[in-house]
Amino acid sequence: MDGMGQGSTSDGWQDVRRSGFARRVALAEARGRLAGLLRPTGTERVALGQAAGRVTATAVVAPRHVPAHSVALIDGYALSAAATYGADTYNPLPIAGAVEVVAGMQMPPDTDVVLPYAALTDTQGAIEVVEPAAPGQGIAAVGSFWREGGIVLPAGRPLSGLDLVCAAAAGVAEVEVVRQPEVRLLVRGDKSGMPVPDFLSELISRDGGATLADVSDLRSTLREIGAADLVLVVGRTGCGGDDDSAPLLADVGTVTVHGLALAPGGSAGCGAVDGVPVVLLPGDPLACLAAYELLAGPALRRLAGLPEALPHPFRERRLGGKIASQVGTTELWLVRDAGDEVVPLAPPERATLAHAAQASGFVLVALESEGHDAGETVLVHLLRPGP
Amino acid sequence: MDGMGQGSTSDGWQDVRRSGFARRVALAEARGRLAGLLRPTGTERVALGQAAGRVTATAVVAPRHVPAHSVALIDGYALSAAATYGADTYNPLPIAGAVEVVAGMQMPPDTDVVLPYAALTDTQGAIEVVEPAAPGQGIAAVGSFWREGGIVLPAGRPLSGLDLVCAAAAGVAEVEVVRQPEVRLLVRGDKSGMPVPDFLSELISRDGGATLADVSDLRSTLREIGAADLVLVVGRTGCGGDDDSAPLLADVGTVTVHGLALAPGGSAGCGAVDGVPVVLLPGDPLACLAAYELLAGPALRRLAGLPEALPHPFRERRLGGKIASQVGTTELWLVRDAGDEVVPLAPPERATLAHAAQASGFVLVALESEGHDAGETVLVHLLRPGP
Repeated sequence: MDGMGQGSTSDGWQDVRRSGFARRVALAEARGRLAGLLRPTGTERVALGQAAGRVTATAVVAPRHVPAHSVALIDGYALSAAATYGADTYNPLPIAGAVEVVAGMQMPPDTDVVLPYAALTDTQGAIEVVEPAAPGQGIAAVGSFWREGGIVLPAGRPLSGLDLVCAAAAGVAEVEVVRQPEVRLLVRGDKSGMPVPDFLSELISRDGGATLADVSDLRSTLREIGAADLVLVVGRTGCGGDDDSAPLLADVGTVTVHGLALAPGGSAGCGAVDGVPVVLLPGDPLACLAAYELLAGPALRRLAGLPEALPHPFRERRLGGKIASQVGTTELWLVRDAGDEVVPLAPPERATLAHAAQASGFVLVALESEGHDAGETVLVHLLRPGP
Repeated sequence: MDGMGQGSTSDGWQDVRRSGFARRVALAEARGRLAGLLRPTGTERVALGQAAGRVTATAVVAPRHVPAHSVALIDGYALSAAATYGADTYNPLPIAGAVEVVAGMQMPPDTDVVLPYAALTDTQGAIEVVEPAAPGQGIAAVGSFWREGGIVLPAGRPLSGLDLVCAAAAGVAEVEVVRQPEVRLLVRGDKSGMPVPDFLSELISRDGGATLADVSDLRSTLREIGAADLVLVVGRTGCGGDDDSAPLLADVGTVTVHGLALAPGGSAGCGAVDGVPVVLLPGDPLACLAAYELLAGPALRRLAGLPEALPHPFRERRLGGKIASQVGTTELWLVRDAGDEVVPLAPPERATLAHAAQASGFVLVALESEGHDAGETVLVHLLRPGP
């Protein structure tokens, strides 16, 4: 309401309590401003056994040729290909120097091929071949996996179990990874009677971060902020009389954005205290989810060395109902799966947890878009495994 | 080799050591036989706080109407819509009984609408409206999220953090979930010089299972098997002289399948001991990966109450090279991302960890297929986040 609740300012920030957002910042602009507040995360070396889920900071290279000597790839007999020349079913050739090997074994001297048991006949204890073998068949030559100094894994790779097996196979013992960003999560009192959004730790982990135990008081959290790479404050971001998260941030630091052209999640914001970036997320679960995924998540993924794009699996799907979106606001529409198509569940301002529970994913409607007609193909970001 | 190493049989099983697989079972047939060995996992009730990642065994229903009374959805003033009728910008109406509310608060008596601060003017302390409001605006009516007994989450839902928030919002305190399948993982000696496949715990967790500490000796593991829902034995499945996993299983239990029409992974198998299903996975990492994903994984997901289909995100991509596949074998081809298309890395029998390290995903070539020509569109299952 005019003339009410206009408090301290911070970089042009205005207190919106009991008045409302006079202006809202476009999502792309807000993301850019938040990105400008981030500090480089740094790197560290960790043993392979501790590296699962971490992100490589530099390319992982092979310390030596792999394999270091030629090895059998299959079980069977090692022999010299030259000894098989001229063999056919009418002219089986006995092989005197054949040596039984199992996969992985170093090749015996003067052998260059491994033939499987099925390719051999055993006549009264003598090995015979019935067709000529090509040199190199059934073996891995020196350096055929990786040459010394060759790239095993690129920089920026989130390390899966399979990646770690590859690195171990290459003789790598430790890797240089991005230091894991520490995210201080402060969930403020639940004013709404709805449960506080306790899904954030799961998303923080997904996005490469480690959640630090939260502290109950925002003012002291913001003062003890030094240890964190990112602070997420959840709740009290709106324009009610008790929505004091932004005012407190303005008091001890800087509010860079408050109010996004985003629905749900329009009361989100960001700023910094002592150089530590702070994201303000709404307390309403769906608004919190949208603001996390579209503002905080990309920032955290950038800190973690991961791609900033949404990490959800996505599909192109036919839209089974109209999405009427407000021009000038980025909108997140929950949709449910309905066989051949997806159906929008509710406009952002009317969507509730009851819709979230039914949703298979969401559609993002761009700032300038009026939405989509039924029958259009839209990109659906999946909230859970499914079609 | 003919006449060599023919040992004990088990349901028609033949020892393949030092001879080779005389016949191989189609993947679909092997899956069916393994499914026939599984025992129902059962269910248990757990508190919501312990339910993350678990799979609902029955639908979660609302124990009462939610919300239990009508509540404000936004911050602002609660009032009676009737009091606003006739208001316009030339005729602002003062509202005497307006009550300031914050989102989530129970609606005061005799109010049926919440107007945001921005919709009101405050003239000398009196609230005025300049347009009529519709009853129900800005509020959530009794039972508008969920009616008592209504379904909040369906059976078979793997519970995300957001799902748990929904359930908590519905007043649910505990949920009936599928008991988590216990998977006993026995990685046998590394005969190949390559690292043992230590990526399986990650995949077991992804597929809803809990990995039990492995025991070093296969014979004793198979005898102490009672506690597990599924046993995975890794290694010694081939036809080398030391490949005794299947013979040991035949000795203490039953070998139902040994030898799959699958590449890589053709030496995999399955069976049971004392009613506990056992899957034999090859020790070679790529063969192990293929056999896990296509044989063991679907069985574990079924035990966990999850869909049996591959859980990887997938994309349709243009193929930038030929895939020549052997008819009669299901083949898994690793592919790498190359901008507009994906390029096959190596035929299954020649693919190594060096290819796995570069791969963005894999293409499955069906049993009867001769493969795909360059330029065809194929379904790529992604091994990591990416295009």
